[in-house]
Amino acid sequence: MTNIHGPRHVVVTSIERAPLDTVDSLASMGTATVHEAIGRRGYFGAEITPIQTGARVAGTAVTVLCHPGDNGMIHAAVEQCGSGDILVVTTTAPSTHGGFGDLLGTSVMARGVRALVTDAGVRDTAELREMGFPVWSRHVSCQGTVKNTAGSVNVPIRIGEQIVHPGDVICADDDGVVVVARGEAAWALEQSNARLAKEAGTRARLEAGELGLDFYGLRAELAAMGVEWVESLE
Amino acid sequence: MTNIHGPRHVVVTSIERAPLDTVDSLASMGTATVHEAIGRRGYFGAEITPIQTGARVAGTAVTVLCHPGDNGMIHAAVEQCGSGDILVVTTTAPSTHGGFGDLLGTSVMARGVRALVTDAGVRDTAELREMGFPVWSRHVSCQGTVKNTAGSVNVPIRIGEQIVHPGDVICADDDGVVVVARGEAAWALEQSNARLAKEAGTRARLEAGELGLDFYGLRAELAAMGVEWVESLE
Amino acid sequence: MTNIHGPRHVVVTSIERAPLDTVDSLASMGTATVHEAIGRRGYFGAEITPIQTGARVAGTAVTVLCHPGDNGMIHAAVEQCGSGDILVVTTTAPSTHGGFGDLLGTSVMARGVRALVTDAGVRDTAELREMGFPVWSRHVSCQGTVKNTAGSVNVPIRIGEQIVHPGDVICADDDGVVVVARGEAAWALEQSNARLAKEAGTRARLEAGELGLDFYGLRAELAAMGVEWVESLE
Amino acid sequence: MTNIHGPRHVVVTSIERAPLDTVDSLASMGTATVHEAIGRRGYFGAEITPIQTGARVAGTAVTVLCHPGDNGMIHAAVEQCGSGDILVVTTTAPSTHGGFGDLLGTSVMARGVRALVTDAGVRDTAELREMGFPVWSRHVSCQGTVKNTAGSVNVPIRIGEQIVHPGDVICADDDGVVVVARGEAAWALEQSNARLAKEAGTRARLEAGELGLDFYGLRAELAAMGVEWVESLE
Amino acid sequence: MTNIHGPRHVVVTSIERAPLDTVDSLASMGTATVHEAIGRRGYFGAEITPIQTGARVAGTAVTVLCHPGDNGMIHAAVEQCGSGDILVVTTTAPSTHGGFGDLLGTSVMARGVRALVTDAGVRDTAELREMGFPVWSRHVSCQGTVKNTAGSVNVPIRIGEQIVHPGDVICADDDGVVVVARGEAAWALEQSNARLAKEAGTRARLEAGELGLDFYGLRAELAAMGVEWVESLE
Amino acid sequence: MTNIHGPRHVVVTSIERAPLDTVDSLASMGTATVHEAIGRRGYFGAEITPIQTGARVAGTAVTVLCHPGDNGMIHAAVEQCGSGDILVVTTTAPSTHGGFGDLLGTSVMARGVRALVTDAGVRDTAELREMGFPVWSRHVSCQGTVKNTAGSVNVPIRIGEQIVHPGDVICADDDGVVVVARGEAAWALEQSNARLAKEAGTRARLEAGELGLDFYGLRAELAAMGVEWVESLE
Repeated sequence: MTNIHGPRHVVVTSIERAPLDTVDSLASMGTATVHEAIGRRGYFGAEITPIQTGARVAGTAVTVLCHPGDNGMIHAAVEQCGSGDILVVTTTAPSTHGGFGDLLGTSVMARGVRALVTDAGVRDTAELREMGFPVWSRHVSCQGTVKNTAGSVNVPIRIGEQIVHPGDVICADDDGVVVVARGEAAWALEQSNARLAKEAGTRARLEAGELGLDFYGLRAELAAMGVEWVESLE
Repeated sequence: MTNIHGPRHVVVTSIERAPLDTVDSLASMGTATVHEAIGRRGYFGAEITPIQTGARVAGTAVTVLCHPGDNGMIHAAVEQCGSGDILVVTTTAPSTHGGFGDLLGTSVMARGVRALVTDAGVRDTAELREMGFPVWSRHVSCQGTVKNTAGSVNVPIRIGEQIVHPGDVICADDDGVVVVARGEAAWALEQSNARLAKEAGTRARLEAGELGLDFYGLRAELAAMGVEWVESLE
Repeated sequence: MTNIHGPRHVVVTSIERAPLDTVDSLASMGTATVHEAIGRRGYFGAEITPIQTGARVAGTAVTVLCHPGDNGMIHAAVEQCGSGDILVVTTTAPSTHGGFGDLLGTSVMARGVRALVTDAGVRDTAELREMGFPVWSRHVSCQGTVKNTAGSVNVPIRIGEQIVHPGDVICADDDGVVVVARGEAAWALEQSNARLAKEAGTRARLEAGELGLDFYGLRAELAAMGVEWVESLE
Repeated sequence: MTNIHGPRHVVVTSIERAPLDTVDSLASMGTATVHEAIGRRGYFGAEITPIQTGARVAGTAVTVLCHPGDNGMIHAAVEQCGSGDILVVTTTAPSTHGGFGDLLGTSVMARGVRALVTDAGVRDTAELREMGFPVWSRHVSCQGTVKNTAGSVNVPIRIGEQIVHPGDVICADDDGVVVVARGEAAWALEQSNARLAKEAGTRARLEAGELGLDFYGLRAELAAMGVEWVESLE
Repeated sequence: MTNIHGPRHVVVTSIERAPLDTVDSLASMGTATVHEAIGRRGYFGAEITPIQTGARVAGTAVTVLCHPGDNGMIHAAVEQCGSGDILVVTTTAPSTHGGFGDLLGTSVMARGVRALVTDAGVRDTAELREMGFPVWSRHVSCQGTVKNTAGSVNVPIRIGEQIVHPGDVICADDDGVVVVARGEAAWALEQSNARLAKEAGTRARLEAGELGLDFYGLRAELAAMGVEWVESLE
Repeated sequence: MTNIHGPRHVVVTSIERAPLDTVDSLASMGTATVHEAIGRRGYFGAEITPIQTGARVAGTAVTVLCHPGDNGMIHAAVEQCGSGDILVVTTTAPSTHGGFGDLLGTSVMARGVRALVTDAGVRDTAELREMGFPVWSRHVSCQGTVKNTAGSVNVPIRIGEQIVHPGDVICADDDGVVVVARGEAAWALEQSNARLAKEAGTRARLEAGELGLDFYGLRAELAAMGVEWVESLE
């Protein structure tokens, strides 16, 4: 929700995307794993939430910068979308409008787009769920938009707590949305795999009843911070 | 959430309702279509949300104006409800209380009421979902209410972003709630049907891959606003 | 979300819990009933919501006080948990972090813990739902936490709108969370049973079409408050 | 923040205003008195706040309905403003933009406008305070607006918790903003004067130490509600 | 904002207060100092803010628990107030109403009350500032209240992030409000004096240009946490 | 409020700053002018507000990234500050803590720092106002912080709606805060001067009663958008 790009209004027609096989592998990791794997970065924040339960996707970002209450630039963005993309839409100031519904959903599904992530609103949510098109948005609102004010497509945008560049990897699931910079995609996958492998071992030990207090070595650390174990408060 | 009615406390016992066959036809349209069809009006706003998924209803409004934390007037309203009605409850100031639960749900279902829309809270949500009684509310809260302060039934009320008069049509689905003035019900249905017919054609063309950019004539319009198509930002 | 306990950091290892059979009987009552039964107290407020639909549980509180963005003390709390407990986690100031995920979920399920209630955030919500571990939280967030700052376990804490002492009964369902003081558990069960019995009778009469207006004697009371029944506003 | 007017975009050039001498007398009453005097109606809500301290004004409403982030219609409204008016600006959906600053302030002061009340934002607040032009707004924001989308002037609008018709009386002070319907202006003044006279007597008795408990007869009423006076809780 | 007291409605007429000379000495410390001195406790949270600038007071709490939109119990509380008291008002659920204005201000000033702290709203703010009666509140609102529902006076209440018992010390200034338990008042004063003395020395060294990094020994600690000093990011 | 920098914790000791004479000239422009001059960018958003009235400053950014509730890195940043700097502090997740007070204020004033801008909280506001040290913050809170978790100094940070790089120009006044990229400082000054010159002419014409409707050519444009001038709504 702000313009970080500049005064010029452009549709950038040629962008470099993260390799799709890497993107596909990142999808199954889950956002919490990917966020941890890249050094606790990339999370869009708790305000951008799924309209469905159980979806887990990844794709390459086609970015859109709109004026509040105006979805003209989303139409310009559709032409720039291809298979494997995720549409990432922000506005230059907060907007609750439902600037994306089942018609735009139909249009982008026809081009192989995998999801919508938006800092504004979405409508026709029952239809979109039925169509199997996943959405993460800040608002659900049936209020319509106009097409009167210029914006940009495929420029760097600020959405939620993050900056997204066109071609970056967008991962989304029930916990929210995480962005991975295009150039870090392969490294992010490697780190995520390493983390998952380690977590598998941890999970086995926890299931067997071992305590995090012990194998993280926390008992001594907490004591050093001043924590005392006492039988009662008196 | 305010009193727009006046200092007098009344229960109006005889109200004129929109014709039920028109109301029934409006239900299937969906709120986004109806909101568009009547000139982008009537939307209650993004804060009043369903407690269930997949419900789509329409009915005639029986309106209730309560003091915060007080549901006495809802009981007075039940007597005024009949088959096809939707109970529309607001308070004179913000209130989170769960002033409606499964007992009131039982009571109004026995009279043929189709749904509750409230600017305050609701409780017993698990039971209400099980009973199949749909609710749109601002809050879910198990906190109980008193019955100590006068209010009114079937007066014009402000709820969410709208004014509702008794007998108006209330449409609600997963996108939220829309009101149609009683006198505009037939026109709203006609406009909604026209819009749906047009959208069916649009959907077919979008599925076939045609771009909104083209058939809305947006390409030239965006260029006129100053949007440039460029290969890259440098 | 605040420290009401004091400057000392302690893990209290021996707490008295409400009797588990009473706790188990309270679970089926539903939070609205329990909240009413004990004099309209104990409700955590509308901001602490379930990540799943349809869960209804009760358990004995193991309390945790953490620094924002720090889950070290949750690990210390796991060791204090046993069968029938519910982990109740607050922070000394507002925190959106997802300080509890599927690994901690695995760990506490291995000890018989029944649920998590937290004033901060949770992550891995898809996995937790799949594991059948119910959670009520203020936030969903995939952002990770550190383990650097001391806190306390099994001290009285403030969470949502309530104070929780270790060993208190926590009831939670789709309407939210309610606490019953340990010493009031038996009385709360008795009151809840009485209320349910009374409500069963009320429900039957409402289903038969009797009006709350009549059997609550509200008609005269509302009139005494100045409410007038009129045929129309003119 | 919504369009309650309809799909047509109009500037209404001839409106009837409340008589200015009545308006001027209402200014000194204070919003709390006026709100009480007309039956606890008319308050815009706690979200619309002054950018200055100590201003107390009244004027006749010239209403403006804008698209979010668009102040074109404010310019159209200036031409409709005359001496004694207050500009009342809302948007069709929430907007934080600073669509009014010192230039528009200069322009409307030249026409005798007394204040701005807006559901959106204002900027140049330091300059406006220096110029002595009072403002009540929902937001302060230096973000600029465009002039691309049609709206209306002098139609009924929803702003904050109220409906304002052109020519209504707007009263504003440190407590916020209150609207009095044009046709109720004289009655509102009469009621306000009566209330002030009564309060003067009450104030004298309270200053002399008499208790509200006594002269409102509350002691018996509270007891009847079940309040007990006890020496201690045990 | 909740009832932590119980189902009974009482006015407790005899409470023990913290010694007034200790209270008076705490006033000048400032809330930040007192909050730190007692182990970072007692802060009401950032939502309860002053309506004036520059006031700094302390007093003994007379507590009030009201139903939302109802100030009847405040009138009952006035009788319990004496010189040196601060009125501390909360509601059983969130309420924005202006339940306290210049008349109640007149009444309590006549009894030597020093301030009002409320989790709800206040009105007549211009008059209260002129009268020199300081207020800390969650809301400013000119909306009036009724006197229809029972509550309690001088029972323990939850307000903002804290529990206040009657007779506790309330400290308030531009940073907000802090409570000190009655039994800890003398200790809190001692700790605050010690802290102020230490801070005076620190301030002198900081003014002379010494770095907190050095005299807190932070340089080594930060390095141990993994912080590196580098000339540039590349 | 997020980490956009990466997993490494660094204090960058050598940063390039915008030229101070340019910075000083930008201060007097006002944030609204500067925001407009650089293409409607740079605004921090309406949530970051001044604790004083009437301050107008500009300076070069020394950036700080802290863990919530932890101000250790602010101490590390002080050493990096010099004359003409503004301290710009964000946290990796939302934090209300008052991590900056009069002692840190004393410390940075001794080094010539001109202001604090923070996405978290500030305390000792009365003292800071008295010292003449201006602050823009999201929260005022007397709650204290710890010094336990690593962060960074002089890395790019996200604060409010913006990205700030060390050495960028920060402009702040009663309308809020605007950032100008270091490399755009001279251009921003030039654009701001041009805008001010143009506005002076506009102001003179508006004071003389000319309408924005006329000299912006809006009359025809609005008509083209469909706006009609009508005498009344009927």
